[in-house]
Amino acid sequence: MFDIYDVIVVGAGHAGCEAAAAAGNLGSKVLLITMNMGTIAQMSCNPAMGGVAKGQIIREIDAMGGYSGIIADKTSLQFRMLNRSKGPAMWSPRAQNDRMRFAEEWRLTLESISNVDMWQDTVISILTDGDRVIGVKTSLGIEIKAKAVVLTNGTFLNGVIHIGEKKFGGGRTAEKAATGLTEQLLTLGFEAGRMKTGTPPRVDGRSLDYTKMEEQWGDEQRGRFSYTDVDLPKEQRCCWITYTNTAVHETLKEGFEKSPMFTGRIKGLGPRYCPSIEDKINRFAERDRHQIFVEPEGWNTVEIYVNGFSTSLPEDVQYRALTKIPGFEKARMFRPGYAIEYDFFPPTQLYLTLETKLVKNLFFAGQINGTTGYEEAASQGFLAGINAHQKVNDLHELIMKRSESYIGVLVDDLVTKGTEEPYRMFTSRAEHRLLLRQDNADVRLSPIGHELGLISDERLTKVKDKVRGSADIVAFTKAHSIDPASINSYLETLDTSALSQNIKLFQLISRPQVGLNELSQAYPALAAHLQNFSPETIEDAEIAIKYESYFEKEHEIVSKMKRLEDREIKQEFNYHSLVSLSKEAREKLMKIKPRTLGQASRISGVSPSDISVLMVHLTR
Amino acid sequence: MFDIYDVIVVGAGHAGCEAAAAAGNLGSKVLLITMNMGTIAQMSCNPAMGGVAKGQIIREIDAMGGYSGIIADKTSLQFRMLNRSKGPAMWSPRAQNDRMRFAEEWRLTLESISNVDMWQDTVISILTDGDRVIGVKTSLGIEIKAKAVVLTNGTFLNGVIHIGEKKFGGGRTAEKAATGLTEQLLTLGFEAGRMKTGTPPRVDGRSLDYTKMEEQWGDEQRGRFSYTDVDLPKEQRCCWITYTNTAVHETLKEGFEKSPMFTGRIKGLGPRYCPSIEDKINRFAERDRHQIFVEPEGWNTVEIYVNGFSTSLPEDVQYRALTKIPGFEKARMFRPGYAIEYDFFPPTQLYLTLETKLVKNLFFAGQINGTTGYEEAASQGFLAGINAHQKVNDLHELIMKRSESYIGVLVDDLVTKGTEEPYRMFTSRAEHRLLLRQDNADVRLSPIGHELGLISDERLTKVKDKVRGSADIVAFTKAHSIDPASINSYLETLDTSALSQNIKLFQLISRPQVGLNELSQAYPALAAHLQNFSPETIEDAEIAIKYESYFEKEHEIVSKMKRLEDREIKQEFNYHSLVSLSKEAREKLMKIKPRTLGQASRISGVSPSDISVLMVHLTR
Repeated sequence: MFDIYDVIVVGAGHAGCEAAAAAGNLGSKVLLITMNMGTIAQMSCNPAMGGVAKGQIIREIDAMGGYSGIIADKTSLQFRMLNRSKGPAMWSPRAQNDRMRFAEEWRLTLESISNVDMWQDTVISILTDGDRVIGVKTSLGIEIKAKAVVLTNGTFLNGVIHIGEKKFGGGRTAEKAATGLTEQLLTLGFEAGRMKTGTPPRVDGRSLDYTKMEEQWGDEQRGRFSYTDVDLPKEQRCCWITYTNTAVHETLKEGFEKSPMFTGRIKGLGPRYCPSIEDKINRFAERDRHQIFVEPEGWNTVEIYVNGFSTSLPEDVQYRALTKIPGFEKARMFRPGYAIEYDFFPPTQLYLTLETKLVKNLFFAGQINGTTGYEEAASQGFLAGINAHQKVNDLHELIMKRSESYIGVLVDDLVTKGTEEPYRMFTSRAEHRLLLRQDNADVRLSPIGHELGLISDERLTKVKDKVRGSADIVAFTKAHSIDPASINSYLETLDTSALSQNIKLFQLISRPQVGLNELSQAYPALAAHLQNFSPETIEDAEIAIKYESYFEKEHEIVSKMKRLEDREIKQEFNYHSLVSLSKEAREKLMKIKPRTLGQASRISGVSPSDISVLMVHLTR
Repeated sequence: MFDIYDVIVVGAGHAGCEAAAAAGNLGSKVLLITMNMGTIAQMSCNPAMGGVAKGQIIREIDAMGGYSGIIADKTSLQFRMLNRSKGPAMWSPRAQNDRMRFAEEWRLTLESISNVDMWQDTVISILTDGDRVIGVKTSLGIEIKAKAVVLTNGTFLNGVIHIGEKKFGGGRTAEKAATGLTEQLLTLGFEAGRMKTGTPPRVDGRSLDYTKMEEQWGDEQRGRFSYTDVDLPKEQRCCWITYTNTAVHETLKEGFEKSPMFTGRIKGLGPRYCPSIEDKINRFAERDRHQIFVEPEGWNTVEIYVNGFSTSLPEDVQYRALTKIPGFEKARMFRPGYAIEYDFFPPTQLYLTLETKLVKNLFFAGQINGTTGYEEAASQGFLAGINAHQKVNDLHELIMKRSESYIGVLVDDLVTKGTEEPYRMFTSRAEHRLLLRQDNADVRLSPIGHELGLISDERLTKVKDKVRGSADIVAFTKAHSIDPASINSYLETLDTSALSQNIKLFQLISRPQVGLNELSQAYPALAAHLQNFSPETIEDAEIAIKYESYFEKEHEIVSKMKRLEDREIKQEFNYHSLVSLSKEAREKLMKIKPRTLGQASRISGVSPSDISVLMVHLTR
């Protein structure tokens, strides 16, 4: 019934879709198995993509040839560049999306990739031959063979949904859980743990009073995630902001004794940085209000997502508390919020390729690795899909570096340190975040995507033009000076001090008030020169000029680290033979099997002196 | 958390959606409860609406103010008027639909009705006070009060899905079954039975070779279900026809020993007139091929519905047999076909309003009553929604007559005779089918919809104009004659015999070759007269002219039957007191509680002499 596939992807969420698309586009014959072909690429949580650090990840996926950015752009209700008032390393794109359109676009995208087949079924175990995966077995009893398997099971593995004191099996509300697979993986020697996440109630937008809330529109100049020319929707839809208050909090507290989180019924740890409203009240007792984002679920539907109000309190408590929020006085709920517990596999059981150490050609991506977030899941799926393809074709592995991408940070953190709670990306997790900006993901990563075969020559040329053009502009500003007489009156209008002598354009642009476009208004030769370049190229040049010294310092640090990061260690290296290592270090190193000295240095319990020992040994 | 609703509708399929919309539009405060707000108005089976007798039902729903026709029109991939070569009573509209768009349109339609609230949950029991329903209880443990409840549970009650020797609980593939409600209704005294239905595999359209199939396009002059001005899609999408063969049949037979139908694992009876492919092979062993309609699931998706290939054989047998169908040699399946068993409640437990006899203000509609088909379900939901509203507002009941609608035939058949197998509508079930045409549903039923308040004055005026205009045209044709000299050469071109003397236009038009539009080409005065009327009015007049004598006879029969149909019997009438009735008649009459002598006469086991006895008694 089925041929032998190159890659089977289990699950069709953000991770599974990117995995299937990447492997398929690279040329692998892919089978995407989903429990329900009607729910491919569901946004299980809020109808939005991106945000701080997460938006950068989407740009990175896009720069390498993934689809999350394209699909988010096509289906965006509005788009905002967050943190524009801060430095460019903090700029973070974020979109609200139409939930139904998003799922539909992914489905149609997958259908458009001729190498991707689909099958509706539930995988209950993997098939192995020795230490290698060779396929999967489904709940229909079918065995399907493959050279590699990517598991992206999301919250479905032994999923249990909690609402107050009620609990029932389910992978998402109204959807079945998946059983059997965890148990089998345990018998193969995997360790599993339990995590928890949650989602807020959905309400009927017709029952809200928006006059009591603040409007929140997207940027007037609509941005985008993708570096490609996606057709963006012409219009945008408004969101709203409102706030909880002490009355809301008091009402919620009435439900605490029935809370599955506070009574210990939920064992799994939840996402610290995406806490439930009861968590927020509990942990930040001093705060008398919390922000609520009122997000429409789509262009036409009246359904509203109450972002910031994730809860697993009893539904009547949810309801009573909701109705005390300004604008929600007459709110009607469509569906209550809930918490969900599910199995994950501590990601220290993976290599940096996302292949498991225990079973060859088996890859894990997404929430199964203990992460939270669409973007984190999508990027892992993308990487796992690529590496699955590379592996079955005896091609080189793709290891993303911490110094080149958030994806690299994400995977290195997971694999090297593991995670006790749902892992979410932040800019602060990236030591080189100045270099890992949303604006330069194309420069950083498109060459990698091109080398793999996921980025066209045309796209790469565009990136190269941008790099060249940016350098050209920077050179121009270093080559040309400006005299006080011709600029001082203009500088006054920009509220920056006058010049006393000729200076390079470069120097002037490093002032916060002066940009390339501003300066070109007073300096016709610059204006003429800039006409040769795209707005993205000009933006790149301006950032390069303004932050040159910071970037130089950062690159120096990266170079210094390179000594460690480039020093590879064989996976089969026997640390027990190195008696000068501490016992803890030996155990941890045997477990993590770091790929480089750099990775080894980030393992908790491995000290700088352990690293010195290792370095000496490796240099021999 | 919830106010007391006027009407709670349980289930959001075709029946539930129409019920909620109708009651809401009439002014009832409605709560629609669905297990999954993401799957409202799913087309569980094929992506098409209408067909023989079924298309007439959709026109009837539309004529009275329901939405099935509007939504089917808006989302149609193509539209065909079936049986155009036969008499107008056989003309039957049918559309292919985009499955996703259909569901979305219904969802948005429900959201647009301000009286309709929605709640995602599973109803596990009804709440009663004495012999009256007062609400429902859900799986979340919530009790929601209402003055009336409409149950439209489809195939979800204790649903069990079969594929070969495998079986598992589910209301549809990949969806949970609903448990508890049947058991509670049994304790209240209801009888329940078990039925079965099935669906074919879905395949990947990219894997089919359409050059080996026959194209099937919709009508060039695109028709519509709705009498309203719905914007129709501009384009249409092609379907295809192919055929099974003996090789397919032989392969399927290899699976018979694992067939849940043939080995007795499925106890419920399936739809005789929508049989599985294995049924067809078994029952019509002499036929060496069966037709397969290859139906796209939507505008953009590659998913294909293999209509005519419904099966619950093991999935590998399904697959191997499929690949022997011309054009399917390289077919890849997306999802296997399956059979599903579910609980139904023999509909003799209902009044003609679809209210249950046992529990006041409780209504059943759709597959729970043992019917099959979207249209049958939608019409019952529509009727139940109306009657629920009427009941809680002490307004008159709506009883549809057999002589005025297919809906009347459907409900009278169900309530009076019950059904042993999934009931499907046919034109042959309607004794007055000549009068129950798709073209005149507006004339027959819009006045009823208007009186209820579901049809606007404007729509009713349009219908009255059509009636008046049609009569005017008929009168014109009876008033005007034509002479042989001015018409005979034209008649020759129409291939009909020449006139030898003057005759009325009316007489000429009753010839099959001559229509009003044809004749007007040769008779300018008629052309001028027709310019005052819409194409629908002209069509109505033409049908009236051509079939006048038949219609007259039919109306006479209806009048004669009226004596019985109009003779009402009190629901509480004690038939046991009438000893001259046969014992069987007394028992059956006590059970069915017919509303009229006409209905009594259709009860099996009630003889003409029993009816005479009753009539004598009632006339006293």
